[in-house]
Amino acid sequence: MKDLIYANKPEEARSFLEKVKNSKVTSLIVIASTMVSKIKGISIAGENPELTLYTPAADVEYLMLGKCLSINAIPKTPDGIPTPAIISRVCIKLTDIPCLIINAGSYIKPKIPYIEMNGRYGEDIRYEDALEISVAKRLYENAKIFIRSIINISDTFIIGESIPGGTTTSLAFLVALGYDAWDKISSASKHNPKSLKASVVKQALDRIKFNTSNSNNALEIASYVGDPFIIVTSSIVEELIDANKKVILAGGTQMASIVAFLKKNNRNIKNVLIATTRWIIEDNSSDIISLINEIHPVPIIASNLSFMESKYEGLKKYEDGYVKEGVGAGGFSCYAFLRGFSFETIEKEVEKEYERIFV
Amino acid sequence: MKDLIYANKPEEARSFLEKVKNSKVTSLIVIASTMVSKIKGISIAGENPELTLYTPAADVEYLMLGKCLSINAIPKTPDGIPTPAIISRVCIKLTDIPCLIINAGSYIKPKIPYIEMNGRYGEDIRYEDALEISVAKRLYENAKIFIRSIINISDTFIIGESIPGGTTTSLAFLVALGYDAWDKISSASKHNPKSLKASVVKQALDRIKFNTSNSNNALEIASYVGDPFIIVTSSIVEELIDANKKVILAGGTQMASIVAFLKKNNRNIKNVLIATTRWIIEDNSSDIISLINEIHPVPIIASNLSFMESKYEGLKKYEDGYVKEGVGAGGFSCYAFLRGFSFETIEKEVEKEYERIFV
Repeated sequence: MKDLIYANKPEEARSFLEKVKNSKVTSLIVIASTMVSKIKGISIAGENPELTLYTPAADVEYLMLGKCLSINAIPKTPDGIPTPAIISRVCIKLTDIPCLIINAGSYIKPKIPYIEMNGRYGEDIRYEDALEISVAKRLYENAKIFIRSIINISDTFIIGESIPGGTTTSLAFLVALGYDAWDKISSASKHNPKSLKASVVKQALDRIKFNTSNSNNALEIASYVGDPFIIVTSSIVEELIDANKKVILAGGTQMASIVAFLKKNNRNIKNVLIATTRWIIEDNSSDIISLINEIHPVPIIASNLSFMESKYEGLKKYEDGYVKEGVGAGGFSCYAFLRGFSFETIEKEVEKEYERIFV
Repeated sequence: MKDLIYANKPEEARSFLEKVKNSKVTSLIVIASTMVSKIKGISIAGENPELTLYTPAADVEYLMLGKCLSINAIPKTPDGIPTPAIISRVCIKLTDIPCLIINAGSYIKPKIPYIEMNGRYGEDIRYEDALEISVAKRLYENAKIFIRSIINISDTFIIGESIPGGTTTSLAFLVALGYDAWDKISSASKHNPKSLKASVVKQALDRIKFNTSNSNNALEIASYVGDPFIIVTSSIVEELIDANKKVILAGGTQMASIVAFLKKNNRNIKNVLIATTRWIIEDNSSDIISLINEIHPVPIIASNLSFMESKYEGLKKYEDGYVKEGVGAGGFSCYAFLRGFSFETIEKEVEKEYERIFV
């Protein structure tokens, strides 16, 4: 039976997970759009750039219902590789974990119930600020109001995301904060479009004539070159760690932005763990471990799923480095493992779900 | 020290509360509008008929923030008597109970985070159906999707409401279901405008040429002459009792509609208790106990708050029969009592909160 992958700070990770095991756990999925995802070649989280704007809504509709309402099939790459939400859905069903959808600023609003943060999608950071500072502040405050109002429902919160183009805005945010993130941020594509991402980020940083000394405020920087996901998630995590809750950031290199936001705001970063997938850990085009350790060395674990032996091309492609992570897939599968479901069981259930949808 | 009031089925109520005491408890506030509240004289849940449309949003803004964003003062009657949300807020703060706001169909959307059900406010039932059946069905389904997704966060759910005009739509719904509710439904006014309510209800029933034999479907009847609150709350409660959760309906005579909806849908009504205020129980112009017993004899308890000795006119007026209940005031104060806060303590805290707002 395959074990979890302990990718960073294994001893801390083990003691963290021991505490999570018997605690009450709730999950949150933060969805948002950034107009950066419409730039040709930036994101494959959708069949074409325009459809990436529908992906966050469609992801959570599928997660809740097993089908989408805002588009007529489940989100996939231009090559037809399905959203990682199929892994998340399987694990949510296995574990019966409560799941709340948070709309930080999706271009398309889901046709299922969700928590409205009264925000807005992020603009194309090449040409304008992602969000007006007033909207960024509202999102930051509303995220706190919301999480405070329900903070006692759980001891541990797993937070996943769906924001096509989000790795690029994360890169911009991290570079603006002074981190050497250029070669460390992953992509849903097998062929990480690094030079395209770098040119978008450089254009954004040029636009705001940014140097790392001219702002000490994480929220401002996120409003210039970030996205609504970074703001809402960081704000929620700030409240959670202040209340001594445990936080599992269920995502890939984007989650570095959350850790960086907390650090910039001088938070005592504790009880935070990143749970991702093996596909992220093993990605040659990015480096989550060195990125996180450059910011603050939080423990990182990864689920040990493999679709190498899958009957289905759409799943096998994950082994080629497509998709990799998203909608909390890594975190949910680590949690299912923790609750006693082997990765082998999860793989079988994902195959069945794939069959149900496509075959 | 004052005890709770056991108004119906006291033994059942005691054993229910014994189980609630050590269970995990979460609260939901369902907000909605009905255009019926704009009929002059129907509702005093707002300074004037137009402002009643702002009351649901303002109530929950105040509940979460201690101030309103959609209007520039907290909701009050034309005479200046404040919303019962001040009692709810005090009790939520004392008990730290998690609280989720559900927008079933508020005319004005709150400027704080809330769960969007993708519904719509109810139309004036004199002239048209409250909701198109397609919208009613969507609300009914979305309420189920939502509550299922978080059902494991709690063992007990306290459900409150804010819907000005809602007693009138409840009356219409109950009469349409064949109940003799005419003299049993309460009002936020000291002078229950019964003949006005009756004429609105008769006009609505005439419009749909209703007789109790021509529909066996609670959802249809609610879409004709009810409101979004009835649909969303009933749907949530159906799911909760099916999952063996305990439900505290925190409200007055309106909650009879929920019990009636469940009965019409042949649900096994169990683990449901109504928690209201003494002002409702002692109201001479309505009769919650006989109304509930006509439908299905669920236990009823009431909080034993009194503002007779209050320094403040706005609170003293509650003793004259104004306002009485709303935004879960009865249920939240019963729950605070259960958690060890005496009614005397709650009264003092409400005075302090009144001072903070108005003095």
